[in-house]
This record gives sequence, C-alpha cells and structure tokens, in this order.
Amino acid sequence: MPESLTKNPEASKSRLEHFALKRLIPLLEETDIQINGPNPWDPQINNSGVFKRGLLHGSLGFGDSYVDGWWECQQIDELVNRILRLPSSKSRWFTTHLISRLRAALFNLQKESRAAQVGKQHYDMGNELYQGMLDQRMVYTCGYWAHSDNLDDAQRDKLDLVCRKIFLKPGMRVLDIGCGWGSFAKFAAENYGAKVVGVTISEEQVKLGMEMCKGLPVDLRFQDYRKINEKFDAVISLGMFEHVGHKNYRTYMHVANNCLREGGLFLLHTIGKNDSLPGVDPWVGKYIFPNGEMPSLKLITKAVESLFLIEDVHNFGPDYDRTLMSWHDNFKRYFVPRMNGSAEQRFYRMWSYYLQVCAGAFRARDLQLWQIVLSKGMPHEAYRRPE
Amino acid sequence: MPESLTKNPEASKSRLEHFALKRLIPLLEETDIQINGPNPWDPQINNSGVFKRGLLHGSLGFGDSYVDGWWECQQIDELVNRILRLPSSKSRWFTTHLISRLRAALFNLQKESRAAQVGKQHYDMGNELYQGMLDQRMVYTCGYWAHSDNLDDAQRDKLDLVCRKIFLKPGMRVLDIGCGWGSFAKFAAENYGAKVVGVTISEEQVKLGMEMCKGLPVDLRFQDYRKINEKFDAVISLGMFEHVGHKNYRTYMHVANNCLREGGLFLLHTIGKNDSLPGVDPWVGKYIFPNGEMPSLKLITKAVESLFLIEDVHNFGPDYDRTLMSWHDNFKRYFVPRMNGSAEQRFYRMWSYYLQVCAGAFRARDLQLWQIVLSKGMPHEAYRRPE
Repeated sequence: MPESLTKNPEASKSRLEHFALKRLIPLLEETDIQINGPNPWDPQINNSGVFKRGLLHGSLGFGDSYVDGWWECQQIDELVNRILRLPSSKSRWFTTHLISRLRAALFNLQKESRAAQVGKQHYDMGNELYQGMLDQRMVYTCGYWAHSDNLDDAQRDKLDLVCRKIFLKPGMRVLDIGCGWGSFAKFAAENYGAKVVGVTISEEQVKLGMEMCKGLPVDLRFQDYRKINEKFDAVISLGMFEHVGHKNYRTYMHVANNCLREGGLFLLHTIGKNDSLPGVDPWVGKYIFPNGEMPSLKLITKAVESLFLIEDVHNFGPDYDRTLMSWHDNFKRYFVPRMNGSAEQRFYRMWSYYLQVCAGAFRARDLQLWQIVLSKGMPHEAYRRPE
Repeated sequence: MPESLTKNPEASKSRLEHFALKRLIPLLEETDIQINGPNPWDPQINNSGVFKRGLLHGSLGFGDSYVDGWWECQQIDELVNRILRLPSSKSRWFTTHLISRLRAALFNLQKESRAAQVGKQHYDMGNELYQGMLDQRMVYTCGYWAHSDNLDDAQRDKLDLVCRKIFLKPGMRVLDIGCGWGSFAKFAAENYGAKVVGVTISEEQVKLGMEMCKGLPVDLRFQDYRKINEKFDAVISLGMFEHVGHKNYRTYMHVANNCLREGGLFLLHTIGKNDSLPGVDPWVGKYIFPNGEMPSLKLITKAVESLFLIEDVHNFGPDYDRTLMSWHDNFKRYFVPRMNGSAEQRFYRMWSYYLQVCAGAFRARDLQLWQIVLSKGMPHEAYRRPE
C-alpha cells in the first residue's frame, strides 16, 4: 500500500477503506494508474473516504465524491479509459456499477437531466450552456472526424454524411425523429433543398430551432414521434434511439416504417453498447436517465426484422471521444469565467466529470456510435455508401 | 382457371391439382405471373402433375419437376424474384418450403453437393466445370459490382476491397479460413506483398490452388480451421461461414479470435438471411447442404459479443444476383456444346435451375451478402472503411 493514501493524513482509515484498497491497488497497477501518482490520469486523493464510498456505492460513490471535491484528476477521461480496458474478469467489482453509470451518464448530456436541472435552477442557463459548449450549428450528437480537425467541421461533415447516405435531392421530404434544435433540418434545407419535418418533445428546442430555420422549408413540431402519420421520402433519427428503451424498439421501428415511402431509406444514428444485458443502474434510472437505454446491435437487428433491410452499419465510436473532449474544452472556456460560488463549482465539477467519463468510455471502446442505413421494400439495387 | 393448364391436355387433373391451383392462381396474379403466359418469367406447363408435386413437396416438388422437364421457364430467376416479393402472409404456402429450398440451393454451389456429385459421377468434370463457370481467378464468392460491368473485374474489385478493408501491407501474414482455390491468397500475395496461409477441407482445391500460387509466399493447407493455432496480422473468411452452422458460430469466432494478433482485423464475408429462424428443410439438410446454415445478423452479432467489436457491416446482396447470372451465362456457354444424352440434360437443368433460383432470391432481397469487419483488442482509432 502507498505510504500516504491521502493528502490529509488525519483522515480516518476505516477497515472498509483498507478492504477496498486491498482490492483496488493490484487492479490499478495493471493499468499504470497510481493513487497520488505523477501522471495526469492519476487520481489525487483529498479524502480517503472516497474508497469507502466507492466500495459501498460503486461508480456512484466515486462520481459523487469527485463532485464533493474528495479527489482530483487532471484527465478523468484517460483514467476511465484505462479502467475500462481492464479485462472484465479482473475489474468486475470496480466496473460493475461504473459501466452502467458511465453509459447512463452520457444521457445526462442528452436529456432534461438532473445535471441540466441543476444548471437551470442555479444559473438559468437553459440553451445558453449548450450554445457555449456545442459547435456553431448546435449539433448535439457525435461529429464525424474522418476529414476534419475541429468540432465545427466535424459536425458539418456529419450532417453532410447523413444527407449523402440517404441520397438527399432537392424537394425530397425528410422526417427527423428527435430533431433537437433543428441543426439537421437547417443544413438539409440550405444545402440540399430538402423539406424537413422534425419532431421533439422539448418546447424550448422547437422555439430556438424555428428561429434558426426562419425562411426555410422546415417544420419543427412539439410532438411525440408515435403521433406522426405521414409519408416521407426518407427518415432520419440522430441520437434519439437511446431514449426509446428496449421495450419500445419494435414500436419505434414500426413508426419509422409507417412514415417511410416504399423504397425509401431510414438512417438511424445511435450510441450502442457491446453486450445485450438489460436495464440500467437503479439510481441512474431514477435520477439521471429515466426510460433510457443503450441498444446492442443484436437488439437493433432483432427490432428491424421483417420491417427493414439492414443495408449498412458504420461504427465511428472513437469520434465521440473527440466530440466530447471538444465539448469539454468549450464548456470550460465558456463556464469558468462565469463561475463563482460553491454551487457553481459543484455544477462545474459534475458536468466536467460526465463529459470526461463519457469520452473515456468511447476511447475504451466500451461504447459505440453507429449509423445504420435501413431500407424499406427490398430495393433491387445494392446500397452504395457514399464516400 | 386458365382454359388450358397444360400443353398436354391429356394429363390428368386430380382433385389435388385443382386444390393447388385454386390457391396458386390468385397468388400469382399479384405478381404478374401467368401460367403458360407470354412473359419470359411465365412458367410453361408440360405436365400438370407439377401442381400436385408442388402441393405435396413444396419447392422440392417444383424443383424436381423442373429437372424432370414437367415445366419450362425462360427466366426462372425472375419468376423466383416475383414469388419471393409477395407479402409473406399471402405466400406462406408457396414459399415456406421454397425459401428454405432456395437458401439451401445456394450451398449447392459451394459444397461437395449432390449436384456436384452428379456432375462428377457422370461427366468427371471436377474443377473443369468451375473453370468454365467462374471468372479467370476462380473466385467462388460474390463479386463486387459497384465499379465494374463484368465478372472478371467484379471479382478483382472484390478481392481488392477485402485487401483494402484490412489495410493489407507488404509482409503482413494473413489467414484465409476456407480458401477455395486460393484466389484471395494469390491476389493478396501478388498485389500487396502479403504472406497468406489458407485452409480448406478439399484436397482438390489445395492441389489446383498451390499450382496457381507457385512461387508466391502462399501456403494452402488441407486442414480443419479449428486446428489452426498460430497468430496472424489479419484474418479473412470468404463464403465459408455458411457451412459452420449456428451451433458452431461461437467456436468459429473463438478460433478466428485466437488466430488474430491484438489490434488486428478480421473480415467475414458471408451470405445471410433476414430472419433468425433455425434449421433448414430436412431433405435439404440431408441431400444438399449437410451441416450448413445461413446466419442472420442477429446471430452473428450475438456470436461476436465480447470477442470482437463490429466496426463495419457492408451489405451488397444485389451484387450476388449479377454474379450468379454471370455464372449462369458462363455455365451455359461452357456446358451446352459439351452436352449430349438425357443424363447430361438433367444435370444441365438442375444446375441452371439452382443458379437462377439463387439469383432470384438475391434479387428479391430474401438473401443478403455481408462483409463484416471485426476488430480485436478495442482499437483506439475509428475504423475508416476505404473508398
């Protein structure tokens, strides 16, 4: 055991802490992580109670104690990457809760979540926080970094890739399920002459989105996607499937199928996980991510059987690492100068923690990002993914 | 009912035939198929007993009666396409057996099958038939037709696509599971400077393959793939997974994983089906396609969980339609001048029937062709499919 496990040597070391450390330290050695070590990914312990909380509450304990300031780390993203790359047999104790927490944490970014509520309650930032954190188009999904080196270009390239993958042509009507602030709708209307209907269950997104799309053939609606009953030439859905939940996958696919003309394409862009284990951490399900669940490819392929053909599956998960780290940079740049007081400090730590943890999970390939092109009506021609 | 259901009006029409026709005719009307009609896909009935055989034995009855000369059709491929495009609720009776038969029939092309045995027994054609039917490189899997208009180029493009998808570089060691006559090995060695080990369970393939690869760093082995215990920089498997059977999918993936170095890529090229229903037609399982089974994407994704990451799924099923029709053209050109006697006539009809039926099944999108790129060891970088 390291001689000094805490920078406050007065802190009590309970038997529970010793037990936790006995299991933790040999594990960390394999990952080149040292407690209070010299590397930027090494955790610096301010209060050794963190180990007890970690043992009792898993990743929840580590996360909350970080927000409480019990430990510091320059590169939480890299710390998480290294932990998740441990063989699962060796790290079960450490990652059982952590993984569900990490996965769930991502949804914190994409939902009216606890953290966002904290943000709103205390700072009334609303859309402002996102404007400060996201790219200029306010795209709240993974960028495509194959040919770009900055967030604005990566998001433009992603939107353009989606348009090309569905072979978008002037005058085509597109349905966007889960349209956010309308970034896709605006891009597709301006650059491809498409007519876009978007639905979202956030009134704020509709308001700001319609402002941004003024003068374009874009109709953003405050509407549950299950209520749509029109035909479109193409359907897309970017970063919304994660909120559907596995019990509704089939319904979701039925709705998308029903809205698509015969021979049309449906592009599904979603985060995914590597296994098909059901459910999320109870705490996470309650506070962070109600009704949310990341799909496995097995569950997606099951949900589409007899409704769609799977024409193409494109995994660019590591691009979410870069996207999240860019959001993190922007967030710091935006937030730090505006921050004062301990409540804001707590919010800053919480938000920063989530962004880095998610980046680490994508870096470790524990999470994937899939763009899946589905066709309706058994088209005769082979689908050729555009370059 | 059409006035004349048979060109031989003397043929008896049993009650069974009437029953069969009563169900069949309204079904066919939806597909623009007319019995004894004027279109090239219309079946011309020589013996109305075909309907009884069809009713009693499903697709097996139709197939066997075609070989027996009880009916004719200029474009069996298009006939099959039209039938398979019927909504399954309407065509269950007609296609239940047909579909498993069609699927199974394809394996007839890829295995030491009944038809091939017939071919050998009666004509001692062996490799010759394949040399007459396939492209110049003797590639016995689906070509890639995105940028070519003839079989030779389509097969070259496919082999090249595989090399580029695994980022093949000079000196890399590649394992080819199910190497056939070594067409991939030869191409990869000549054009990319790769060293290739191929395994097959056909001694004839090893013999001809090693001749074709003389002087190249290619080692084709007569060996069960489960016996390989070496590490390679990349693994590929083209058109072999169809012979593995779902009970062995996990073993297959374990072997591929065990043979691949950390961070390496495994390219799996396989025919697939749209649903995950198990098993094949008993007759087919016994005579045509022992131990064979086409996977669904769901079963593949399940088999790779925790062994590989799925980086890319590329579906170019319709290219198998073109490949099969090219094989059919070549087969006719090769075989017809060499054909004499009724036994050869029967073989010709059987082989021609299989090729066209399979082409129709791909045209109807009842069968898919997937190239799936899998990675080992959670690589940090996103997989970028080459253009």
